[in-house]
Amino acid sequence: MISLIPLEGIPEVVPGDELADLVLAATQLAAYDVVVVTQKVVSKAEGRLVAVDASDPQARRRLVVSESVRVLREREGLIISETRHGFVCANAGVDLSNVAEGTAALLPLDPDRSARHIRDAIKARTGLVVGVIVSDTFGRAWRNGLTDVAIGCAGIAAVVDLRGTLDANGRELAVTEVCVADELAAAAELAKGKASGIPAVIVRGAERSWFRESSVRAEVVRAAAQDLFR
Amino acid sequence: MISLIPLEGIPEVVPGDELADLVLAATQLAAYDVVVVTQKVVSKAEGRLVAVDASDPQARRRLVVSESVRVLREREGLIISETRHGFVCANAGVDLSNVAEGTAALLPLDPDRSARHIRDAIKARTGLVVGVIVSDTFGRAWRNGLTDVAIGCAGIAAVVDLRGTLDANGRELAVTEVCVADELAAAAELAKGKASGIPAVIVRGAERSWFRESSVRAEVVRAAAQDLFR
Repeated sequence: MISLIPLEGIPEVVPGDELADLVLAATQLAAYDVVVVTQKVVSKAEGRLVAVDASDPQARRRLVVSESVRVLREREGLIISETRHGFVCANAGVDLSNVAEGTAALLPLDPDRSARHIRDAIKARTGLVVGVIVSDTFGRAWRNGLTDVAIGCAGIAAVVDLRGTLDANGRELAVTEVCVADELAAAAELAKGKASGIPAVIVRGAERSWFRESSVRAEVVRAAAQDLFR
Repeated sequence: MISLIPLEGIPEVVPGDELADLVLAATQLAAYDVVVVTQKVVSKAEGRLVAVDASDPQARRRLVVSESVRVLREREGLIISETRHGFVCANAGVDLSNVAEGTAALLPLDPDRSARHIRDAIKARTGLVVGVIVSDTFGRAWRNGLTDVAIGCAGIAAVVDLRGTLDANGRELAVTEVCVADELAAAAELAKGKASGIPAVIVRGAERSWFRESSVRAEVVRAAAQDLFR
């Protein structure tokens, strides 16, 4: 059984905050927990905040383009672009909600590094083996509605390769590379209300074999050359 | 807190089986549980099985094309197509793993109806209000690794519209339509091993407000005209 435990009582995050300390103050972690932290609080802790006049569409657009390496589609104020990290998402992940008026939160420069930093700090303070995922809310092609995905991870597999594993009938599974990091991010999202300001969720009971060094950039981001839809 | 409870001990499913009975024999459901059932057992129960020589690439291709309304991309034995339901996925959801040698499982004809059938049967036998999701394992654009998504649902919201809800700072959230059905499917996947033959997972503790009439077809499938990547 897996439990999804929202962390309540974490105060408003400001630049310089050590998220590991805020998580540890809010809960008693156990070995092999996965701590899923939202991009927003990671960006706040890392000071990835810029001033922008949100009422000015051109100012917003300039900011999104400056955070992009390539614009894929643009329509009615929505820009789908590729970020420096290789993420394809709306508005380059620039976020105007849940931040102070007149400011926007940008994606962390290196969300895998952000996750490693939190994981290392938790390890240093508690000795516990845990996984950390930095999550963000992305749209996707072909399907309506947003889902939370992993933009960074540490200590937990991004993609689990089950190719070659036998299925229940003893036949080899053809292709079953499961993106458990995205599934962990999605699961965590279910446990937090969107507007209730819960910045972290603990996933307890994940497969032990998933705990290993990994990164979203190396395992999840699909190279443009391999991508049929870019 | 949300719990993800894998249902063990469900026997091999054969055409004509009533999945609601198999679920109820395997566990004690509670009100407001979400029962996530894999496409594979739904297809088996509904007899959506066809003979195919899996060793013949042309036979496999013909079957995939016959299950598609439109082929979007084709490369090295992989076909990305649009199914009659409007799903964009690999090989039209035709599945050769975890079925008997020489057979393939096709997607249910109407997965929302499949979910409603299970939900109605559970309601009739227990009186409980539950949600039911039929899940399948899909790839996606831009990101490596597969994740489980909802292909049908009943009694539980597919997409929750949080537009107009205030964020923690009292500002209106711009666009936050969350596809909770896909997140529930992804969460459920974490609780079942891929090769261990667990066909159903209970999600306990979902938001009460998500329990309403809904359908994946109406809320999640994006019309081609609205789609920037088709």
